[in-house]
Amino acid sequence: MVVIDKIDAIRAQVNEWKKKGLSVGLVPTMGYLHHGHKSLIKRAAEENDKVVVSIFVNPLQFGPKEDLATYPRDLERDKEICALAGADLIFHPSTYVMYHKDFSTVVNISGLTDNLCGKSRPTHFTGVCTVVNKLFNIVTPDRAYFGQKDAQQLFIIKRMVKDLNINVEIVGCPIIREENGLAKSSRNTYLSEKERQAAVILNKALKKGKDLIEKGIRNVDDLLSIIKETIECEPLAKIDYINIVDIESLQNVEVIDRSVLVGIAVYINKTRLIDNFVYEV
Amino acid sequence: MVVIDKIDAIRAQVNEWKKKGLSVGLVPTMGYLHHGHKSLIKRAAEENDKVVVSIFVNPLQFGPKEDLATYPRDLERDKEICALAGADLIFHPSTYVMYHKDFSTVVNISGLTDNLCGKSRPTHFTGVCTVVNKLFNIVTPDRAYFGQKDAQQLFIIKRMVKDLNINVEIVGCPIIREENGLAKSSRNTYLSEKERQAAVILNKALKKGKDLIEKGIRNVDDLLSIIKETIECEPLAKIDYINIVDIESLQNVEVIDRSVLVGIAVYINKTRLIDNFVYEV
Repeated sequence: MVVIDKIDAIRAQVNEWKKKGLSVGLVPTMGYLHHGHKSLIKRAAEENDKVVVSIFVNPLQFGPKEDLATYPRDLERDKEICALAGADLIFHPSTYVMYHKDFSTVVNISGLTDNLCGKSRPTHFTGVCTVVNKLFNIVTPDRAYFGQKDAQQLFIIKRMVKDLNINVEIVGCPIIREENGLAKSSRNTYLSEKERQAAVILNKALKKGKDLIEKGIRNVDDLLSIIKETIECEPLAKIDYINIVDIESLQNVEVIDRSVLVGIAVYINKTRLIDNFVYEV
Repeated sequence: MVVIDKIDAIRAQVNEWKKKGLSVGLVPTMGYLHHGHKSLIKRAAEENDKVVVSIFVNPLQFGPKEDLATYPRDLERDKEICALAGADLIFHPSTYVMYHKDFSTVVNISGLTDNLCGKSRPTHFTGVCTVVNKLFNIVTPDRAYFGQKDAQQLFIIKRMVKDLNINVEIVGCPIIREENGLAKSSRNTYLSEKERQAAVILNKALKKGKDLIEKGIRNVDDLLSIIKETIECEPLAKIDYINIVDIESLQNVEVIDRSVLVGIAVYINKTRLIDNFVYEV
């Protein structure tokens, strides 16, 4: 597996591919790859001639009290996963390569970033948009792949691409889950066995919500109460947010009279996990 | 002169050129072109196979009390100037094409935008960076040309390109002046004959400052006083700012012990004009 850490080198490689008329897919990641990432890489390999996986734990998207220092890293393991899934190279820059000492530019999105994860992580999406914008400029992919587990991120990236006229197709891919329903996440590695079992409550609560919507319940307060009660049955769980939002504006709705994103963030002890589903009208 | 107002159409044309291996220069403007713009277009035509001039009066870079509504426009005249100067096409989008109704993404630069024009026009450079970022994504030029009259803009665009890894070379071009020394600007059209004569004071005051620096004066307070006094001799002039700043950080310096930008903004009655020079150590 080729690993490139310099911007000029990755540009040269991509230019060589483009000159041959080859298409390029990008899978932006923070590494410590799991089956979710693997599904993105596989999809990218199906739809593009060449696939670049970026692995960069982006300091700009972590808050001051978040888990930047402890975020799991294992490049050797990631290389194997990338190779097996069909990637052609890994872009693995240092923090200094991405953020020189006088770095002072950010990409900001208003509105879509106020609610859901943006409420508890106020600088998070500025960090995400800025790094993804940089990666798009460096790799200039034809398509880029993002998981629907980070649904708000996916919607925000799509908006950034539309607003700034970035010439890339954003492909959202389904959530990949453990057998017990827990959504795959690099942060699952923080969980003890007991916590991992407790974490199943996120998916369970969402499933209950989805069932009720499909049965015709339309009042959002009622739905939120039931999801909340379900999560609170799990003693290790502490709710960060439960939101039912319009899938365009990501603002809360009162009645399900349009397509919505039902998103939750729950702490299992100290580990913050997210999950969601989209209900389309 | 070909005028294109749709993003897809400009992309198709640029792609066609790029497939033939032709280089593309972009000259971003707000139209009402003068000799300054002409010099940018000529330079672009010398250094590139094809030249795109964008003409777009960008609402995002105007403050609520500024001159968006009255900003001069004359596309027919601009077409002639573009043709004579060697442009290949004009990109002239509508506001709606550039800013759809849910538009919500901006590019923000901190530090460099606090001083000089950024102080009296706090949202201006966010508007400039956002529209220039969009134009770069739409036109994907090899080189883009900006006048040094808007020196802060030039430095900020260079920083944006560096920070966001945009693959374009930024070329700064010298200030073009009237015979009497007044820097060319589309806003000069606001001036009456009397005001136009009064406006010469900007260049006069800067020349005095430059002479003194060249003669060895290094104390910034002394220099600012003399520039201020010179401008105040002109009854129609009202100073917005006079700043002597480090050319990297654009922060004020106390002593000229490095390369500096000496920048001024002066109202001549209601018309705000800017001018500057760079002194390199």
